[in-house]
Amino acid sequence: MSNVLEIIPLGGIGEFGMNCMAVRYEDEMLILDAGMGFPEESAYGVDVSIPNFEFLEEYRDHITAIILTHGHEDHLGALPYLLKKFNVPVYCSHFTAGLAESKLEEHDLVENTLIHRVEPRDVVDVGVFSIEFIRVSHSLIDCFSLAIKTPVGTIIHTGDYKVDETPVIGEPIDLRSFRRYGQEGVLALLSDSTNATVPGRTPSERAVIPAFEEIFAEAPGRIIVAAFASSIHRLQIVLDTSQQFNRKVCVLGRSMIKNVEIADRLGYLDIPDGLMVSFNQAKQLRDSEIVYLVTGSQGEMRAALSQMATQSYKGMTIEEGDTVVLSARIIPGNERTISRMIGFIYKRGANIIEEKRRLVHVSGHASQEDIRIMTEAVRPKFVVPIHGEYRMLFRHKEFVKNHLGYAEENIILIENGDVLELDGERAAVVNKREIGRTFIDESGFEEIRRDTVRERRQMATDGMITLVITLNAETGELQTPPEIVSRGVQGLDTGNGFSEDAGRIVKAAITGASRDTVKDESLLKEHIRVELKRFIQKRTGGRPVIMPVIVQV
Amino acid sequence: MSNVLEIIPLGGIGEFGMNCMAVRYEDEMLILDAGMGFPEESAYGVDVSIPNFEFLEEYRDHITAIILTHGHEDHLGALPYLLKKFNVPVYCSHFTAGLAESKLEEHDLVENTLIHRVEPRDVVDVGVFSIEFIRVSHSLIDCFSLAIKTPVGTIIHTGDYKVDETPVIGEPIDLRSFRRYGQEGVLALLSDSTNATVPGRTPSERAVIPAFEEIFAEAPGRIIVAAFASSIHRLQIVLDTSQQFNRKVCVLGRSMIKNVEIADRLGYLDIPDGLMVSFNQAKQLRDSEIVYLVTGSQGEMRAALSQMATQSYKGMTIEEGDTVVLSARIIPGNERTISRMIGFIYKRGANIIEEKRRLVHVSGHASQEDIRIMTEAVRPKFVVPIHGEYRMLFRHKEFVKNHLGYAEENIILIENGDVLELDGERAAVVNKREIGRTFIDESGFEEIRRDTVRERRQMATDGMITLVITLNAETGELQTPPEIVSRGVQGLDTGNGFSEDAGRIVKAAITGASRDTVKDESLLKEHIRVELKRFIQKRTGGRPVIMPVIVQV
Repeated sequence: MSNVLEIIPLGGIGEFGMNCMAVRYEDEMLILDAGMGFPEESAYGVDVSIPNFEFLEEYRDHITAIILTHGHEDHLGALPYLLKKFNVPVYCSHFTAGLAESKLEEHDLVENTLIHRVEPRDVVDVGVFSIEFIRVSHSLIDCFSLAIKTPVGTIIHTGDYKVDETPVIGEPIDLRSFRRYGQEGVLALLSDSTNATVPGRTPSERAVIPAFEEIFAEAPGRIIVAAFASSIHRLQIVLDTSQQFNRKVCVLGRSMIKNVEIADRLGYLDIPDGLMVSFNQAKQLRDSEIVYLVTGSQGEMRAALSQMATQSYKGMTIEEGDTVVLSARIIPGNERTISRMIGFIYKRGANIIEEKRRLVHVSGHASQEDIRIMTEAVRPKFVVPIHGEYRMLFRHKEFVKNHLGYAEENIILIENGDVLELDGERAAVVNKREIGRTFIDESGFEEIRRDTVRERRQMATDGMITLVITLNAETGELQTPPEIVSRGVQGLDTGNGFSEDAGRIVKAAITGASRDTVKDESLLKEHIRVELKRFIQKRTGGRPVIMPVIVQV
Repeated sequence: MSNVLEIIPLGGIGEFGMNCMAVRYEDEMLILDAGMGFPEESAYGVDVSIPNFEFLEEYRDHITAIILTHGHEDHLGALPYLLKKFNVPVYCSHFTAGLAESKLEEHDLVENTLIHRVEPRDVVDVGVFSIEFIRVSHSLIDCFSLAIKTPVGTIIHTGDYKVDETPVIGEPIDLRSFRRYGQEGVLALLSDSTNATVPGRTPSERAVIPAFEEIFAEAPGRIIVAAFASSIHRLQIVLDTSQQFNRKVCVLGRSMIKNVEIADRLGYLDIPDGLMVSFNQAKQLRDSEIVYLVTGSQGEMRAALSQMATQSYKGMTIEEGDTVVLSARIIPGNERTISRMIGFIYKRGANIIEEKRRLVHVSGHASQEDIRIMTEAVRPKFVVPIHGEYRMLFRHKEFVKNHLGYAEENIILIENGDVLELDGERAAVVNKREIGRTFIDESGFEEIRRDTVRERRQMATDGMITLVITLNAETGELQTPPEIVSRGVQGLDTGNGFSEDAGRIVKAAITGASRDTVKDESLLKEHIRVELKRFIQKRTGGRPVIMPVIVQV
């Protein structure tokens, strides 16, 4: 159908992370964000997931640009994989470009990628679309909402945002531009739902300063602050407070060092001369003269903080007298790991300050009253909650309906793969595409196939058995007793006669098979596998993977 | 050493769950509680963990009794496994005995187990020990603290508790008895730390009644309440409120039905005549006349609530107009699963009420001010924080030190396996036993060996490769090209020459092996395995399990 705009989320709707969305009008398509996610399949060698871009293949010649709202992994992490398939220009802020380039370098993609760096209020024409980049506040810096003029009307994609009038770095959110669009008329607002269940306003990035000042004033010895490497405002606060209390700062942890370097190089961080010291210099200083700014707030075993807590960080261990500040939220799913790390820090005798005890962290996402400010500024015809699990999307809808007076039919709940069609008057999901996720093994930036994950899961639960059958190539008769080897299977202890019994089952299966079956190796394998499976399940209750191998001699 | 008391935690210290402790004086030993835990190894077929009771073997003839404080799984779940090893008498309350028997039945142990049912204030002499059972409040009913008189002094083990002056079922916590012991003198208080990080008092079980009344008054249609099956006070509140609002109650979910049955049979639940209805009767009623009391508050896929949300429960689906109440806390680690379930419930169009939005759940554990009341009542010489991860134990210590005036040396932090020695004057950890956990596959109540879990974990991460090598039994030469089959391994796609190259590696390994290696099958296997491992790691980056099989023909 023509003269309609299609909005197709590839990820980020009904899940945390993997934010990615296609916006299509006739034969032109923009991709907004290209994020990665952290799937529950991590036990099976999966490091991250990205949207399955397969579905974009049919629009290969239509994709005109990738637009990034900001540089968090859940908006940027899939960029290399997307660019490998569709090498189109990328538009983003300077800082986002810095993070993107660092990532593209790892994939050896920098040379062949065209990145356009844009400023707030820049308007870029890409074919039929005209995109204005509007400054928003977030835990990261240099973040944008996108106002996209299309032939059917203007849509605004908030990206991740909160309404922060007093950020630490840069200008406040540009509400004026949002209001300007509101006055001109906005067809749809695609709006961040991450904190839609949280009442009130999200505090400013500055809100944590008093707690930091108190902690720095009280700390008798070393101070170790763990934060997200991407929380640039927070890093600036740590630098400022260190300067104020005459402490030097030593940055540890790969991603923290990288982000500080990028933010410094691009002029976003204000680092007083002589403030930063190397690890070796830091160790020369008195305990009361140093702050370590480190990675590992989520208890990641390989990150600096966890290693310092478990005495496995080279050259430094957390000790009595240290003050450890966890300046980050707990990402759901990490509770156990973080709790364990905190236990180790207490064991070392250090003092530890968590979000629950003092205000050392604020969210970067819009709470309900921020959502109110944004929605009332933009006054869109349709509200489309994005970014979040279903419960957040539904609560976002509930809030907009009950507190902002929107009619049910003007709040559109969509799912990944839904094709939301807008013609300027109506908005409706007209189609559903199968999209799904692609699993990535980050060690080699390699895709892990779904059946690989399925096989690994089955072996993880019940183990695996290999059965080697040696047949006479001419007569088809068993040449030696079947050999059974296993890994991770219960109940096959030598001495309980399992091997002998299983051998009999296999022998009987071969003898009992039809001539046609015996002749066809794959039929014979399957026949034996089924018989053995039945026997093992009865005997042990388990369902291991069974892999018959036939050797013809 | 004689004339000293030893306290040896087998579990529950530095972890949630698996609460179990040995108390030993000369040649007599009591076991206090026998709990199970829910380990992170669940991806590898492990359902629950229990303490490794191996260490108790050397005291086999000394163990005189098992004392249970209450019937929660983390205090009771390992009982069958413990009894299978050491068949000694069990002492516990009537309700705990009811739950224990139901569990022992599954293991076919009822006939051979001696359970002594005790009343609050009962004093039982077991050898040198004299144990008084003191009534405490908790989310479960019929729970005890234990006051154990020993030759070196009295120790009090709180079990799980909170200070609830107005429980729904039964009498309030028996603070008088605690004070009586306090006046007589208490050597050590072993005290629940689960909520030691929470300021203030834990609300009474009754605190949720107003929210339930509001919800029942407002709900237009069916009400579905999900709670822990063991939260008997909560179940009574749901029954009472249903009666008050002229609704019938239908109980669904195996464990919920079981617990209601036991609590009813033993006279703890007050169920008005005609209140309970069967599932079939319930379906005949109007939506405004029914309450479903169900399992699945943690989003468990097989439990009633989750199935109703995903349209897979036979005969009932959550629908628009339904009000779902999640009357339970989120157990850390379950956030994602619960959030997903809530999303499905919203999708069905139902209203959902969570703990965060209304007071529909209270904890069963002592907050800091409850800890103050308990500690001040008992006034022990030593405080020993138990039950909780290290961070809770440390915060417990911090609270007792900073707010109750205890000296550092009178608060003893112990770990699982520590041997805490008390002689009436001093308390010190004098020894450390290796205890560890035993993994259990609940489908067959079978122990899963550690190396089974290790093998499963390795296959889960990188898959597995079987290599079949056919050798001439006389010459030791390769008879056919090596056969390579794999499951869950990446990068072995046909067409990239992997099999051929691997075949060459194996062939070269055999040819290059010394005569002695070729002659010894296990040496040869290991030699081939190492060569192939090196090749695969170089080629694919992965480290699959490699299982060579040699067939001699």
